[in-house]
This record gives sequence, C-alpha cells and structure tokens, in this order.
Amino acid sequence: MTAIDQMLNAHPKDLGINQALLAECITACLECSGVCTACADACLSEDMVAELTACISTNLNCADICATTARVLSRQTRVDADVTRAIVEACRIACASCASECEQHQEMHDHCRICAESCRRCEQACTALLESLG
Amino acid sequence: MTAIDQMLNAHPKDLGINQALLAECITACLECSGVCTACADACLSEDMVAELTACISTNLNCADICATTARVLSRQTRVDADVTRAIVEACRIACASCASECEQHQEMHDHCRICAESCRRCEQACTALLESLG
Amino acid sequence: MTAIDQMLNAHPKDLGINQALLAECITACLECSGVCTACADACLSEDMVAELTACISTNLNCADICATTARVLSRQTRVDADVTRAIVEACRIACASCASECEQHQEMHDHCRICAESCRRCEQACTALLESLG
Amino acid sequence: MTAIDQMLNAHPKDLGINQALLAECITACLECSGVCTACADACLSEDMVAELTACISTNLNCADICATTARVLSRQTRVDADVTRAIVEACRIACASCASECEQHQEMHDHCRICAESCRRCEQACTALLESLG
Repeated sequence: MTAIDQMLNAHPKDLGINQALLAECITACLECSGVCTACADACLSEDMVAELTACISTNLNCADICATTARVLSRQTRVDADVTRAIVEACRIACASCASECEQHQEMHDHCRICAESCRRCEQACTALLESLG
Repeated sequence: MTAIDQMLNAHPKDLGINQALLAECITACLECSGVCTACADACLSEDMVAELTACISTNLNCADICATTARVLSRQTRVDADVTRAIVEACRIACASCASECEQHQEMHDHCRICAESCRRCEQACTALLESLG
Repeated sequence: MTAIDQMLNAHPKDLGINQALLAECITACLECSGVCTACADACLSEDMVAELTACISTNLNCADICATTARVLSRQTRVDADVTRAIVEACRIACASCASECEQHQEMHDHCRICAESCRRCEQACTALLESLG
Repeated sequence: MTAIDQMLNAHPKDLGINQALLAECITACLECSGVCTACADACLSEDMVAELTACISTNLNCADICATTARVLSRQTRVDADVTRAIVEACRIACASCASECEQHQEMHDHCRICAESCRRCEQACTALLESLG
C-alpha cells in the first residue's frame, strides 16, 4: 500500500467516491506530473530541440494540470462534483494530447516513450474515475 | 500596461487568440490564485474555523486551478484548443463555486468578500475568453 | 525502476550529480507533496480542526515547497548550483518543520503519523543530496 | 490598494511582520512567476531556441520558486521563521540567476528585457523582506 492509499484510509470522512479509483488517479497524476516535467527538460537538452518545441509546451501544460488534479482529488473535506468532473476531464484531455505528441518522438527519444506511457496510464485513470462519478 | 500585457506583445508568434481577453484572463487568474490562497489562510486563523472548513477547501482548489490556468494560457508556442477550453472551463466552474461559498461569509468576514469579488472577476474573464474561442 | 529513474536514465545530458540520490530526492519530494496535501485536508475534516490549524498551515507550505523542489531537481538542462542548494535546503527545513508538527498529533491522528514519516524520508533525502553537492 | 494588500488588511491575526514589505514581496513574486512562465514560452517560440535553452530552464525554475514563495508568504496562521527565511532566500537567488541570464538576451529579445526587470524587482523585494526579518 502506498502512502497515498494510507492517507485515504486515514481520512476522517467517509469518502463519497470509489477509493481504489481515487487513489489510482491521484498516484497516476503525481507520477505523470513528475515525468512530464522531466520530459520537457530532456527535450530541451536534445540537439534537435527546435523540432521538439511543441512537445515541450505540451509537456509543461500536462505537468501543471496533472499536479493540480492530484491536489483537487486529495481534498475531500468539501467536494463540489462539478469542479471535480471539470478538472479530471481537463486532465484526461491534457494527458491524451501529451501522449499523442510524445508518441510521435518515441522511436527517437526514450524519454518521450516513457512519458507517453505515463500519460496514457493517467488518461485511463481519469477516464475510469470519471465513469465512476457518473 | 502591465508586465503580462507587455509579455504578450513581445511574443514572437502571432497569437491566434484575442490578446486583450487573454491578458485579462491571465491577470485575473494570477490575482485570484493569490487571493484564494490568502483567504484560505485568513479563514484558518478565524476563531470560528470549524464553520469555515468548506470555504478553506474550496479556496485551496480555486487557488490551484487558477494558477494552472494562468500558466496554460501563457503558453502560446503550441496551443491545443481542446486543452485550453477544458482548463478555462474548469477555472470558470471553480471560481463560480468559490465565489458562491465566500459570498455566504462576506457579511462576517471581509476577506471572504474580497475573495468572492476576485473570483467573480476571474469567472467573468474565463467566460469572456471561452466565448471568444467559439 | 520507477518512471522517475527511467527518465533520468533517458536524459540526453551527462548529469553532473549523483543520479541515485537525485532520483531518491525527486521521488521523496513528489510523495511528500501529495501526502502533505492530503494531511492538510484530513486535518481540516477533523472535529477538532481548531486545534490543528498550525498543522494545516505547515502542511500546505511543505506541500508547495516539495512540489517546487521536485521540479527544480528534474531540470538538468542548465543547473545553477546556488539555486539547487537553496531550494533543497528550504525543502529540508520545511520537511523537518512539518514532521515536528505532525509528530505532536500522531498518537491521535494516523494521517499525521503517515505524513510525519513521509516528511522525515524527504528531509533525509534532501540532506543526503545536499551532502553530495558539497 | 491591490487585492493582495486588502487581503493582508483583512487577516484576523496581527501579522508579526512589516506588512508593506510583505505585500510588496507577494505581489512581486506573483508577477515574476507569471512573467517567467511567459518568457520561457516566448523563448521556446524563437527561431534561435537552441541558443535559449539555458534561459528557458532558468525561467521555469524561477516561475516555480516565485509561485511557491508567494504562497508561503500569504500563510500567516502559523509562521516558522526558518522556513520563511529559507524560501525567500531561495527566491532571491533564483530571481538573481534568472535576471542575469535574461539580461544576456535583452538586446535581442524584448521579452527577456521585461523578464529581467521583473526578476530584479522581485529580487529586491525579497532582499528588503529578508532584511526586515533580521
């Protein structure tokens, strides 16, 4: 059990949400945020950086949106379902966009391959959570 | 002209977006993010903090979503219109939610009144930008 | 090997830093940032929230500083050693401060115990990295 | 009076810090964070991006550190003077580093000139606040 799972178990409130899907989505968002930050920097260090500017820009957006989504999902004191749905939806779209971009460079750059995989995992975790929210 | 306006003017790309509405939205997001962070803390320092926990939670979400929206809007190198629309929509919803919450306490707490006003300004800036995006 | 380790391995530059300690510190910062965000929210949901306001405030600071430190450490394109040292030092101090605060409530609140442990791990990872930087 | 000043005035606690310097520092951090995010993106859109990678990396670090510093300074419920000093010192160093980098490109790129000026203002606000903290 990860520290994130343990924290959800220790929460004083009865969470009105599927806890396994919530934990998975928070964990995927935190990882994806870290990986996208690292991929933006790895792209910036490539000799062919001029061909990777769209990828860097997309990575930076995905990193910020994932970090914010992890935070909003971790706050269960007062949940506004409209806010939750809107930010998880934004995260799903940002991850899909970043994965598509990184997949174009994954043959050439291993960091783009690893990043695309992390984005796809996070996209799926967001989709699963959105479906459970109804 | 603020520093944010100056930066948009100095951008090497021809921005494919209404620049005045973009600058207004970025500026409103930065202010609202700062004000919501401060309102969460002011609520936390009130003797009646136990009655303000929903407000604090809502403030923290709004602060994070506004900060991320300002960043995504500032990145014009490669714009994915779906990502832009989704995050500005999430921001609009978060600001409306936070304004509604703060307005319930504004008679008693001046920080909630100031915060509600900042959230409403940001909500309107998001709405105007979304309309211009079509 | 975690996704963060894989990203450091895939970086095009020869990192001028102990890579194992760097990976450990980034990973600890990401986890601690997530755990502190969750602990702030769990405290906010406790009936005795009025006695936990210092803990919430300290948690929120630690969450922000850890998140920023993870990002700065993930950027190896152009490293300014003074900036690295200053932010890792700030992170070490914030984690020690948050751990001390949470340890005071760990008998009563399991979320504070888990959070204190995560802060101590991150404090140690920062200390080890700072020592390797000389 | 800006919204940030108003929020500090409305805070229920007697702030144990020079309020004018605090407000100035928070405002400078928020502006600098927004400007550095925009400068990183403008550099990324330049044809000569390959010569600006150090500037982009430095801008991104400065943006994150300034955003976090603004947040920590906005939290006055429970202040740990060691944490405050460490993060404001990290911010001062990051702003000085980013200003030096941007000043090297300011003849050629107006966004780097505007960004260097914003970084210098924030560096000075941090220095003034640190001096007042003793």
